[in-house]
Amino acid sequence: MKGWRRSLHRVIFEADTPMGKAFDLGLIVAIVLSVITVILESVGSIRAKWVWELHLIEWVFTILFTLEYIMRLICLDRPMRYVFSFYGLVDLISFLPTYLSAILPGAQYFLSVRVLRVLRIFRILKLMKYVGESDLLVRAMWASSKKIVVFFSSILIMITVLGSLMYVVEGEENGFTSIPISMYWAVVTLTTVGYGDISPQTALGKSFASLVMLSGYAIIAVPTGIVTVEFSKAFRQLSPTYSCPGCGAEGHDDDALFCKKCGHELPDPKS
Amino acid sequence: MKGWRRSLHRVIFEADTPMGKAFDLGLIVAIVLSVITVILESVGSIRAKWVWELHLIEWVFTILFTLEYIMRLICLDRPMRYVFSFYGLVDLISFLPTYLSAILPGAQYFLSVRVLRVLRIFRILKLMKYVGESDLLVRAMWASSKKIVVFFSSILIMITVLGSLMYVVEGEENGFTSIPISMYWAVVTLTTVGYGDISPQTALGKSFASLVMLSGYAIIAVPTGIVTVEFSKAFRQLSPTYSCPGCGAEGHDDDALFCKKCGHELPDPKS
Amino acid sequence: MKGWRRSLHRVIFEADTPMGKAFDLGLIVAIVLSVITVILESVGSIRAKWVWELHLIEWVFTILFTLEYIMRLICLDRPMRYVFSFYGLVDLISFLPTYLSAILPGAQYFLSVRVLRVLRIFRILKLMKYVGESDLLVRAMWASSKKIVVFFSSILIMITVLGSLMYVVEGEENGFTSIPISMYWAVVTLTTVGYGDISPQTALGKSFASLVMLSGYAIIAVPTGIVTVEFSKAFRQLSPTYSCPGCGAEGHDDDALFCKKCGHELPDPKS
Amino acid sequence: MKGWRRSLHRVIFEADTPMGKAFDLGLIVAIVLSVITVILESVGSIRAKWVWELHLIEWVFTILFTLEYIMRLICLDRPMRYVFSFYGLVDLISFLPTYLSAILPGAQYFLSVRVLRVLRIFRILKLMKYVGESDLLVRAMWASSKKIVVFFSSILIMITVLGSLMYVVEGEENGFTSIPISMYWAVVTLTTVGYGDISPQTALGKSFASLVMLSGYAIIAVPTGIVTVEFSKAFRQLSPTYSCPGCGAEGHDDDALFCKKCGHELPDPKS
Repeated sequence: MKGWRRSLHRVIFEADTPMGKAFDLGLIVAIVLSVITVILESVGSIRAKWVWELHLIEWVFTILFTLEYIMRLICLDRPMRYVFSFYGLVDLISFLPTYLSAILPGAQYFLSVRVLRVLRIFRILKLMKYVGESDLLVRAMWASSKKIVVFFSSILIMITVLGSLMYVVEGEENGFTSIPISMYWAVVTLTTVGYGDISPQTALGKSFASLVMLSGYAIIAVPTGIVTVEFSKAFRQLSPTYSCPGCGAEGHDDDALFCKKCGHELPDPKS
Repeated sequence: MKGWRRSLHRVIFEADTPMGKAFDLGLIVAIVLSVITVILESVGSIRAKWVWELHLIEWVFTILFTLEYIMRLICLDRPMRYVFSFYGLVDLISFLPTYLSAILPGAQYFLSVRVLRVLRIFRILKLMKYVGESDLLVRAMWASSKKIVVFFSSILIMITVLGSLMYVVEGEENGFTSIPISMYWAVVTLTTVGYGDISPQTALGKSFASLVMLSGYAIIAVPTGIVTVEFSKAFRQLSPTYSCPGCGAEGHDDDALFCKKCGHELPDPKS
Repeated sequence: MKGWRRSLHRVIFEADTPMGKAFDLGLIVAIVLSVITVILESVGSIRAKWVWELHLIEWVFTILFTLEYIMRLICLDRPMRYVFSFYGLVDLISFLPTYLSAILPGAQYFLSVRVLRVLRIFRILKLMKYVGESDLLVRAMWASSKKIVVFFSSILIMITVLGSLMYVVEGEENGFTSIPISMYWAVVTLTTVGYGDISPQTALGKSFASLVMLSGYAIIAVPTGIVTVEFSKAFRQLSPTYSCPGCGAEGHDDDALFCKKCGHELPDPKS
Repeated sequence: MKGWRRSLHRVIFEADTPMGKAFDLGLIVAIVLSVITVILESVGSIRAKWVWELHLIEWVFTILFTLEYIMRLICLDRPMRYVFSFYGLVDLISFLPTYLSAILPGAQYFLSVRVLRVLRIFRILKLMKYVGESDLLVRAMWASSKKIVVFFSSILIMITVLGSLMYVVEGEENGFTSIPISMYWAVVTLTTVGYGDISPQTALGKSFASLVMLSGYAIIAVPTGIVTVEFSKAFRQLSPTYSCPGCGAEGHDDDALFCKKCGHELPDPKS
């Protein structure tokens, strides 16, 4: 790797030099501003007034992000690996829609481009890696993931059964026009969102819905319980303990006096 | 038990042979597909177009599940025990409604058959036993079950009292047309679902409702607290640890080899 | 106390004889039935049809409960203490409204009696003492009560501030007609009930409401956290431990080897 | 500091003398009454009837709080420090709006003054310091604050992405008129508030919304988990225990007199 490519790599991909930090900060600001532009453009009254200005800003950011993408490709030894990585794809999606909107003209084009353009917002996902220190959250979520999958598959079965029963109990004349709609009602009710666009009308339906809601009560406790337990575990592993002077093992309990791996006496935490 | 019956039993009821696993997998796929058929049939626009195809699929699955049910009866020594077990009844319910729809003709028949047919969805409950590893969830729920019953009976008393008071406070002219309707409102409010189909209109009613909602706040914490505590207990029981042979101290980490209190070697958990 | 009064006392107030148990069971059944009667009477269509039957049942229960109340007074040495106790007042409220409805005739009377009659439902509160074993729940709630009071007073301040700000932001033309109505909206929103009868209409109001909802998220965690911690404490105190052979002290930790009060060795729980 | 200033300081700023306690109590009563006056004035029907009385009370309280503010300035050695402290600013905001309403006449004035006047309600925040013992709550919230910030920034990213996707899926004809409105919908749904003023109309939108709601389920567990863990930690830190002088064991109960591990006498916590 040549000298200038290495320097570029350090600026773009690393954040431990003043230049790298400045680049990262500038990138985050640009991402946030471009997302705000997309959001503002979707508001009818703003679009009507500032259509040209918004388009200009849109194109400026698109070109900036394109240049950034090219620079990333240049300074990497295996650019293809980056292109097909998660962040590589997100980077690509963040400027491609604007070009597509220029190539494909026509009436339908405006609508479809809007779809693509909104996807551009995924660019903000790049923020994720800068947020940092969300390790604990991610680790707790990950540790719970298997249990959460089991939990959600039982929820899915439950929603199918409840939706079907409610479809029979209330019937098509009370807004429960099909089993999928009834399942949607079951989700809205079990999660305690309760829009009220579909709600039981008959006495039997209301009694049944009451039972469903009270079950939702017990059910909401399950993921909370899972995550709380995983959190305590994650915290315990994070609490700063001393590495064993004998074998270097870490992760001892707060009240440990001897190393759990080699039996060597541990230093007194109070001293 | 003859040889072929034993082989059949191994394929249908057990899952430790390649044949048994293939059978279980095929069964799950068939169950999911048939449930999707029932769900699709309930959608008006799809039923209008594909009525014959859906009926055909329906009957194919019905005959498949009937054959499976008969095979289960054949390869068991005590088939009656299976028939009246939970899964036996669910299996029966999963194909019987389709036959009933053929025997009983007439206009009303279509409606009532819809009721029975939807019950067929319970077939999906058989999935439960394949999900597996939901032991922890079930154990925690079960351990909490007694406390949850006490909790729900106090909730029921609370709902009766709150519903009655609200019926008096708001009266029939504001949508609270009877005590059961008011109790339904109390459930919708305490569980924080809040459809909004019935909501207080008077100043007094709104004040009272505010109190009810803030109580709901404290109440939602109770089942969460119960389940979380049971979860930690279930987890702790899952990680059996050993007391130190030297000093008797307990609560060692899973990966501990030496006592954290006296440094004595711990017995090998794998042996 | 004479013999028959003592026998009566044992039947009515105690539950350790077959007669006492039968009396308690009969009482609970009568209470539930009478509550169901009150609930049914509030339903317009049922009241229209069965007005006389419901009145008859109402009066039968009223006389029964009156007789029970008199018997309670007779068999007690200090009846006044009972009359002014919580259960004494609940017992009185459970039959008095029916008599009041007979003494005070007139049109308005029917309405007001309905108010009083509904209070009769408090009779069901007597069930509380039969439910039993709800000790744990009550103890955990009680232990948390002080913290919950602090929590609710901060919630009240928060609701006042949020309600006032929203009244200014949205104004009277968008449904926020006064500060109390805005405070009602704040309660409905913070508790995540969300009826939708009042909801922000302006862009600023919606932004502000979004902030309020996301705070509600963090806030709902506070009572849950309090109750969960108290639950673990209550459970730990309940877990069966051994009383000290030396001084009889109880409540030792699971891993205690010596009495925490006198230092005497404790029996080995495993033996 | 002169004698009478020191006495005044003791009455106003301290609460350990009978005079000081009486002053604090009177202040709290005055604050609550004046807040009630502001709230009542916002109700149309009350304002119409009692406009002069409410204005009079308003001015009486304003003058009282002004005098209190001046007295606070007088009895302090560094009054400027108080003026720019949190409570100093809250105290100033609690009477200034009323004077502003007198200086600036005109039609628009009434509206803008109402804005300022409502801010007066912040005066109630002064109650915070009298509530006391909310230390535990505040400490737990504070300890969780960093994690809550990370959590809320990920929520914000999530809401942006979900809102944009829903804007494309449902489109302007179904109430999702812009990305900000869709983001508002995402907040209302993820927090399970669910007003129902905007809800998905298309089949695809309903499916997507169902996924969002079920995610909300898992997400609501995260802040609960964080706060619960911090609470347990805060509680544990509040109950300081001693390590045994004999064997060094820790984690003794609050009422323990002897070590639970070796039976050695523990030091008296009171000494």
